[in-house]
Amino acid sequence: MTQDKVKLFGVWQSPFVLRVKCALKLKGVEYEYVEDDLLNKSSMLLQYNLVYKKVPVLVHNGKPIVESLVILEYIDEVWKNHSLLPEDPLEKARSRFWAKFVDDKFVPVISKMLRVTPAHKENVAKDAREILKTLESCLNPDVQFSEGNKLTYMDIAIVWVGYYAQILEKILDVKLLDDDNSPLLNKWFKDVFDHEVIRECLPPFDKLVAHYTNFHEQHMTVDD
Amino acid sequence: MTQDKVKLFGVWQSPFVLRVKCALKLKGVEYEYVEDDLLNKSSMLLQYNLVYKKVPVLVHNGKPIVESLVILEYIDEVWKNHSLLPEDPLEKARSRFWAKFVDDKFVPVISKMLRVTPAHKENVAKDAREILKTLESCLNPDVQFSEGNKLTYMDIAIVWVGYYAQILEKILDVKLLDDDNSPLLNKWFKDVFDHEVIRECLPPFDKLVAHYTNFHEQHMTVDD
Repeated sequence: MTQDKVKLFGVWQSPFVLRVKCALKLKGVEYEYVEDDLLNKSSMLLQYNLVYKKVPVLVHNGKPIVESLVILEYIDEVWKNHSLLPEDPLEKARSRFWAKFVDDKFVPVISKMLRVTPAHKENVAKDAREILKTLESCLNPDVQFSEGNKLTYMDIAIVWVGYYAQILEKILDVKLLDDDNSPLLNKWFKDVFDHEVIRECLPPFDKLVAHYTNFHEQHMTVDD
Repeated sequence: MTQDKVKLFGVWQSPFVLRVKCALKLKGVEYEYVEDDLLNKSSMLLQYNLVYKKVPVLVHNGKPIVESLVILEYIDEVWKNHSLLPEDPLEKARSRFWAKFVDDKFVPVISKMLRVTPAHKENVAKDAREILKTLESCLNPDVQFSEGNKLTYMDIAIVWVGYYAQILEKILDVKLLDDDNSPLLNKWFKDVFDHEVIRECLPPFDKLVAHYTNFHEQHMTVDD
């Protein structure tokens, strides 16, 4: 692997870039990180991700791979140490299902929360709590999160949900990660946040709060 | 594999069920097909897909797997004959990327086309052609579709796009699969439609046209 040249294009605040950073760190892959600018995208980013023009983009020996969950699978296949996905096809399917679930369901709600007017924040918070409650339902004895202290694909695909939920709680002064609503999930997020690899990769909490408070103040348009 | 019990819950008109039928047929997996009713969903479906309550659901030895692309990966991992996904991690990533692309981009446009008023059909058709043009761009010498006569994950993940585009052309009297716009894609769709497994799995064209004409007549509300 000494000839491998790995580059990651990202922006510091992105939960999807976070996933890739965690996976590379867990695998011990050395890489060059390139911080891009979403308001003034680099020509390299536009060239590497022609379709979406978005980060993260992983460039491995000159070849770009895009979409964070696709990148996670790629990393797991190329660097075999510390497997991220479970061996069992059924467990693997469940991991993929829940990773897709949070992208399909939580991303639009976050986007709405970052644009909601104060008068309507409780409605949107309720939607978010519903999604977290559904996510909670995957935490049953059949599905292992963070078995032992070994982070999995599920852990690094979903950890951002807990972190960004806390950010939104702070910005909007609402309750999302309520112990009555999602006790197992809250416990699991706390465990994952405590893992040293995750701690090293998470963007600074206060910096995120400041960044998204600013964003929210400029984009308050959602009032349903 | 003689003890395997495989059941597929579907509806005949679903492009996502089509994917799963093709994969099972290619692998030679014997299964029981259960036609569900979207207007009156069976208790089995609701039980097996608690989160989305949607088809397809594959039930393998009593365990449900949901989401068509997750199911394709599962089938490819459990039944090893006739590999669907390529061996190379980079090619695999590209296949996953394009399969996700059509779900993210083409599904909402189809949904809009099935609801568009006649006055606005050309606007939506234009959006659809843009997506097909982007999809066309993946047909370069680096990416092999239908190499030889061997169907791949890409083929069965994307074949529905061509088929349902033809259905929409018929219902709305618009041009989507224009040779000026997407010549390689059109050629590829024709080749895949000709494969005997695909021919056996595709829902009857005229039945689909009648079904979606009826749907369109009842849902014409999109006027932008």
